[in-house]
Amino acid sequence: MKTIITGTGCYVPSIVTLNRDFLEHDFYAENGEAFDTHNETIIEKFKAITGIRERRYARKDLKASDLAGFAAENAIQDAKIDPETLDYIIVAHNFGDVIHGENQGDMLPSLASRVKHLLRIENPECVAYDLIFGCPGWVEGMIQAQAFIKSGMAKRCMVIGAETLSRVVDCHDRDSMIFADGAGATIIEAQDSEETDALQTGILAHHSATFAMDEAYFLYFDKSNNQDSRNTDTRYIKMQGRKVYEFACTEVPQAMKACLDKSDVSIDEVKKIFIHQANEKMDAAIIKRFYRLYGAQVPENVMPMNIEKLGNSSVATVPTLLDMVRKGQVEGHALEEGDVVIFASVGAGMNINALVYRY
Amino acid sequence: MKTIITGTGCYVPSIVTLNRDFLEHDFYAENGEAFDTHNETIIEKFKAITGIRERRYARKDLKASDLAGFAAENAIQDAKIDPETLDYIIVAHNFGDVIHGENQGDMLPSLASRVKHLLRIENPECVAYDLIFGCPGWVEGMIQAQAFIKSGMAKRCMVIGAETLSRVVDCHDRDSMIFADGAGATIIEAQDSEETDALQTGILAHHSATFAMDEAYFLYFDKSNNQDSRNTDTRYIKMQGRKVYEFACTEVPQAMKACLDKSDVSIDEVKKIFIHQANEKMDAAIIKRFYRLYGAQVPENVMPMNIEKLGNSSVATVPTLLDMVRKGQVEGHALEEGDVVIFASVGAGMNINALVYRY
Repeated sequence: MKTIITGTGCYVPSIVTLNRDFLEHDFYAENGEAFDTHNETIIEKFKAITGIRERRYARKDLKASDLAGFAAENAIQDAKIDPETLDYIIVAHNFGDVIHGENQGDMLPSLASRVKHLLRIENPECVAYDLIFGCPGWVEGMIQAQAFIKSGMAKRCMVIGAETLSRVVDCHDRDSMIFADGAGATIIEAQDSEETDALQTGILAHHSATFAMDEAYFLYFDKSNNQDSRNTDTRYIKMQGRKVYEFACTEVPQAMKACLDKSDVSIDEVKKIFIHQANEKMDAAIIKRFYRLYGAQVPENVMPMNIEKLGNSSVATVPTLLDMVRKGQVEGHALEEGDVVIFASVGAGMNINALVYRY
Repeated sequence: MKTIITGTGCYVPSIVTLNRDFLEHDFYAENGEAFDTHNETIIEKFKAITGIRERRYARKDLKASDLAGFAAENAIQDAKIDPETLDYIIVAHNFGDVIHGENQGDMLPSLASRVKHLLRIENPECVAYDLIFGCPGWVEGMIQAQAFIKSGMAKRCMVIGAETLSRVVDCHDRDSMIFADGAGATIIEAQDSEETDALQTGILAHHSATFAMDEAYFLYFDKSNNQDSRNTDTRYIKMQGRKVYEFACTEVPQAMKACLDKSDVSIDEVKKIFIHQANEKMDAAIIKRFYRLYGAQVPENVMPMNIEKLGNSSVATVPTLLDMVRKGQVEGHALEEGDVVIFASVGAGMNINALVYRY
């Protein structure tokens, strides 16, 4: 038996927000002090590190579960399946549905139930739940779907990552420029291995890890950097940027190696790495260190990226990138039968995971 | 191989809130109209239906993840395990950590990461994630742990349900009297079946269902019943009480039967039913209909209850009840080796699940 991806879909929100749209923001450091550099300089530096030129925000009337629903429809269409045959709908997110202009996250009912409702799926045995695992939530959902399939509890699952980070950013924090909205979805299912298969396809190995000692609060929820607005209780996504960067560069390559080694695939066979679109420089450093663990150089064209135009949409980045590459929307990148790919992610928890998959 | 519970723990919050503590509340109907009955009558009627005399609230300085941590410590001690050997920490909840007096839920990082942090577990391969599945979250976490164990991805998991509903209730809604705070935790692990085992022990069968057509929003998040406070954006847990009641009485017995039938255990063998402590009258009606599906009468003493003193603490009710019965804290109820028990729950989603377990 093999566990394979039979369809992908994504939803790219319609509102394009450019770097220059942040020019008039009042940015403050964590300690509340204003910066003595112009916003122009701050933004240039930001662009140089993260690679982000623009990001997408969802229309005001849409919530994370709506984006998830659009991505789900696309994935279902792509896989050409009857949605009533889904055994699981797993939605990864970290903030619930946040109404534009409000501050509470809402997951009553779960976003997975909302997606099931939007898709009008009647079959009660299609079980819908949400998974909270930081940015690596979609990859973790794939691992959980694999567990259901391997244990005989499911045959066909839909795994979605959806987030509206634009509604939980502090506009007085430079990091607000990183974050974006988006949704990606995948159909994953059990298939009998055929005798003609020269090589096992589908998921070959997985690896997950949670670092919760000092790392637990590297990403956290806290009040605005603007001291004047600290009398309100509203909290926002916050990041100890340097610590996250160092942690990711050390631990992600190790986790990817642990996963690849479990799969018994050689590093030379890896065709593409779909890595969480967190920060272009960081992603490049991770990949470099990963290859260095094998005494190898990073091959040309191994890492498709879309962060320049889409920003960091948390759980949505990896499935969105996969969908775009599969559909020929990332220049110079394509997937062919037999290609080995690695999915890898890192984020709040701190959680790290990886999947090795033969296409 | 069998999947068995090797330890349980709970945390019963310290603040006792009596029904009479609601005497001075201004209650309104969903449409904002005041009731023309005295609160004394409202409370009497409430007590007659739900069976709740008092409920527990957490101390102001504690959050849901703290309650989860206390329950986890108790379960680990009970199971006599080294926490570093846990493969998974699964925390079921529906609102995240809500700081007393504030309105935002916080799950950045996940509550499972927070629990792992509190327990000082270093092993990164102990994977910590949160599960959102309405009140049946703890039962669903047990089902997911079983999937990890069955598929060979885990040997030992901790499943926790923790919630501080007191911080998401609308004090102008009569339903606020139902809800409570609490946490329960369980250690579940793989064990080799022994040849001397006359009967398979551990989890024998499970059943899960999500009803997301009209049912999806039977439980939802919305503004206060008090029109005067509707100019704030704060939302609270809300319930279409009658619809929930009718749905649960129809669907839960069917789900329990589906589960028991899968387990191949006869109805006469069922010794205890641990049902979500939602509402005493509803629970009694569910059990009655369940036995009626087998043409049987409800046996004496089959359903331990603690709702009278603890209220409805959502995901925490079933693991708390199990822990209390195991430790002889529910009068007239005990568990003996070989006893078959059913765990069953229902809640937002609308989700229903059941587990048949031989002790």
